[in-house]
Amino acid sequence: MELSQRQETIIEIVKNQGPITGEQIAEQLNLTRATLRPDLSILTMAGLIEARPRVGYFYSGKTVDRVLADKITRIKVGDVKSVPIVVSEKCTVYDAVVTMFIEDVGTLYVVRDGGLLEGVVSRKDLLKTTLGGHDIHKLPVGVIMTRMPNVHVTLENDSVWLAACKLLTHEVDSLPVVKEVPKGKGKDFEVIGRFSKTNLTRIFVELGEGS
Amino acid sequence: MELSQRQETIIEIVKNQGPITGEQIAEQLNLTRATLRPDLSILTMAGLIEARPRVGYFYSGKTVDRVLADKITRIKVGDVKSVPIVVSEKCTVYDAVVTMFIEDVGTLYVVRDGGLLEGVVSRKDLLKTTLGGHDIHKLPVGVIMTRMPNVHVTLENDSVWLAACKLLTHEVDSLPVVKEVPKGKGKDFEVIGRFSKTNLTRIFVELGEGS
Repeated sequence: MELSQRQETIIEIVKNQGPITGEQIAEQLNLTRATLRPDLSILTMAGLIEARPRVGYFYSGKTVDRVLADKITRIKVGDVKSVPIVVSEKCTVYDAVVTMFIEDVGTLYVVRDGGLLEGVVSRKDLLKTTLGGHDIHKLPVGVIMTRMPNVHVTLENDSVWLAACKLLTHEVDSLPVVKEVPKGKGKDFEVIGRFSKTNLTRIFVELGEGS
Repeated sequence: MELSQRQETIIEIVKNQGPITGEQIAEQLNLTRATLRPDLSILTMAGLIEARPRVGYFYSGKTVDRVLADKITRIKVGDVKSVPIVVSEKCTVYDAVVTMFIEDVGTLYVVRDGGLLEGVVSRKDLLKTTLGGHDIHKLPVGVIMTRMPNVHVTLENDSVWLAACKLLTHEVDSLPVVKEVPKGKGKDFEVIGRFSKTNLTRIFVELGEGS
């Protein structure tokens, strides 16, 4: 956001003298309260200053970057997740590749009864296998997949920011979105969605539209 | 989004006087309604003003989003691009797969002398080929690649937002970053970088850190 000179000045005044009323700010700038109103409401809406009734304006301590960061970390994985594409552990490598093309996804999640996560298989895993001279019409994906507990997952209630951090850190293109299901002393993960770099790209485009 | 002077003025008018018709805005600016139409539709699409039939335009008050959108559209592809991984058209499919694994990228750019773009080859292209029973030790990538002019590219000076739009629209994981080189009546593209969904994910993470 490009702040006007006057808006920058208002932030300075509020930062140094807040809490301060609109009247007092107007006085210092030799302007009427009415003239200032649009600036004050823009700065308040942008989260750069805050208004408290009968007290006045005070500085929120948030920079523009901070406001942005707040917004990004408030978007939840559950708000943007896609439908997961799943196969069983016994599915052959050949059928997995076909499923990947038909569903047009980069990662398949391997599940057992009840949609419980067993592993994931990526384009890279499949490419390596097709290259290896295996009989891909017989080899089951269970043999080549990355198996739990080595699969990185995300929860519906995680922020997309946290999910993006996981994508980068673990160098994967997608994360299964899961719900925890108690099992004895441990837990299982039911697959309820898919979160990929494509979802992130979509969010990015929407944020840039200012929508 | 960089707004023009006129667009800024329109926002001011709508903010102060809205709801207001397109006719009325045009009158105040001494312009015809037709001249204003592109500006009004851009501002409406960007969500900065809203249009209601038989009422007119009014200010949407979406300031936080505006902050974000401005920031996002100011980041340039050149600021964040990665090193391109290139092969020649005669490289075999087998060698291309090996290069992809060694360099750990999802897309290879196929170039001729001078680094001029000939095509791109993705994991998906390679996977389809390894599945197809070809002799991948002999088949050159030139046969299976997506060839110019069907390759989508981006320029260093494009905003990452525009590049993200292209990734989504054309359903690709990466775009070659190119420099235009005049050639007769047309032009060639010299490959100078790589822009992928991974670059976008990194930007997203950094924005969320408020850094």
